[in-house]
Amino acid sequence: MKNALIIVAGGIGKRMGTTIPKQFLRIHDKPVIIHTIEKFLLFDPKIKLIIVINPDFKKVWDNIINQYSLPAGYEVISGGDKRFHSVKNGLSLIEENCLVGIHDAVRPLVSVESIFKIYSHAAVHGNAVPAITVKESVREINNSGSKIVDRTSLRLIQTPQVFRSDILKKAYEQEYKDEFTDDANVVEKTGIIIHLVPGDPYNIKITGKEDFDAVKKLI
Amino acid sequence: MKNALIIVAGGIGKRMGTTIPKQFLRIHDKPVIIHTIEKFLLFDPKIKLIIVINPDFKKVWDNIINQYSLPAGYEVISGGDKRFHSVKNGLSLIEENCLVGIHDAVRPLVSVESIFKIYSHAAVHGNAVPAITVKESVREINNSGSKIVDRTSLRLIQTPQVFRSDILKKAYEQEYKDEFTDDANVVEKTGIIIHLVPGDPYNIKITGKEDFDAVKKLI
Repeated sequence: MKNALIIVAGGIGKRMGTTIPKQFLRIHDKPVIIHTIEKFLLFDPKIKLIIVINPDFKKVWDNIINQYSLPAGYEVISGGDKRFHSVKNGLSLIEENCLVGIHDAVRPLVSVESIFKIYSHAAVHGNAVPAITVKESVREINNSGSKIVDRTSLRLIQTPQVFRSDILKKAYEQEYKDEFTDDANVVEKTGIIIHLVPGDPYNIKITGKEDFDAVKKLI
Repeated sequence: MKNALIIVAGGIGKRMGTTIPKQFLRIHDKPVIIHTIEKFLLFDPKIKLIIVINPDFKKVWDNIINQYSLPAGYEVISGGDKRFHSVKNGLSLIEENCLVGIHDAVRPLVSVESIFKIYSHAAVHGNAVPAITVKESVREINNSGSKIVDRTSLRLIQTPQVFRSDILKKAYEQEYKDEFTDDANVVEKTGIIIHLVPGDPYNIKITGKEDFDAVKKLI
């Protein structure tokens, strides 16, 4: 089965357009999103690549793509209102009979080994989602304070999440719900059992400045 | 109220004594535990310092302390069977009417700002425990697979956890229970409400080699 990848890069940064979103910022002179994409090209140089961006940052993207060459056949599409709609837009460009990974542009530290493992597992089980155990104590806050939660059965979920295209396309025919914060949730709603595979604790998602600074040192 | 600190450094490393435990390994030519202690000395150079170590590594510790000067009055005591017993041993050296922090030796990235904030909060409320929100999706594994968990009310708990000495000493009079994985749990069992304060996402606990490698780059 052919490999495909939807890179979700629709974020507009915290200051709503007054600064460049983190996926386009440079680390060692290369934009975060290019670091991210290069990991997948090491896994499969012929991967079908769909990049979902916010149209407000089309110029920023065009400027990047003039400096870095992506493999033939990559496509760029505009994001939607929520992550759900962005992925759905990207999915419209995905052909039948492939394995589709969905990955956050702001996770450049994903390892090639992890990518290989997740796609391989999805090829067998129809889907694969990276998850890590929780090594901190966990508490649940409530009106009267907080209480301890047993962490042993909890897992933190990452990307890339990989699905057979038929499963993913069917799932994205659903109406949007607020609980659709990631693709596993969308697919699970159609009755599919999600297969978790061990993720990498340092596959960090850059959301705040402290993440950006940490990734800069770790990359 | 005087500040005190129990540094829990009783870990013996994964290979049960055949290698040096991570708190004694060097980063930039200085043992992890010294990096950690120095953060607290920046907060309060006169902090009463109790270090709990495993007696098997007394020689390693003695070798370290010959090279780095700790403030007068610091004490070293042997750890016990579980973390609970180690803290209890350390607590036996703590006098009345102070604020006692308990901190993992393997968390050298704790910031001086966080330490200040946690002790200040404990001075007002009797206790303070650092907690961070969860930015990944969370799943709970079960016999049939896994299901999504609402992450909004979950918090990941870190150290230093700081308590008024009377509250902590009373809590540690209890018999040991398996659920006593951190000090907040022990204190909570005596009916005290735990006060959470925002922690720092990069106050990393070194447990595996990947953590050590990451902290080395981040320190």
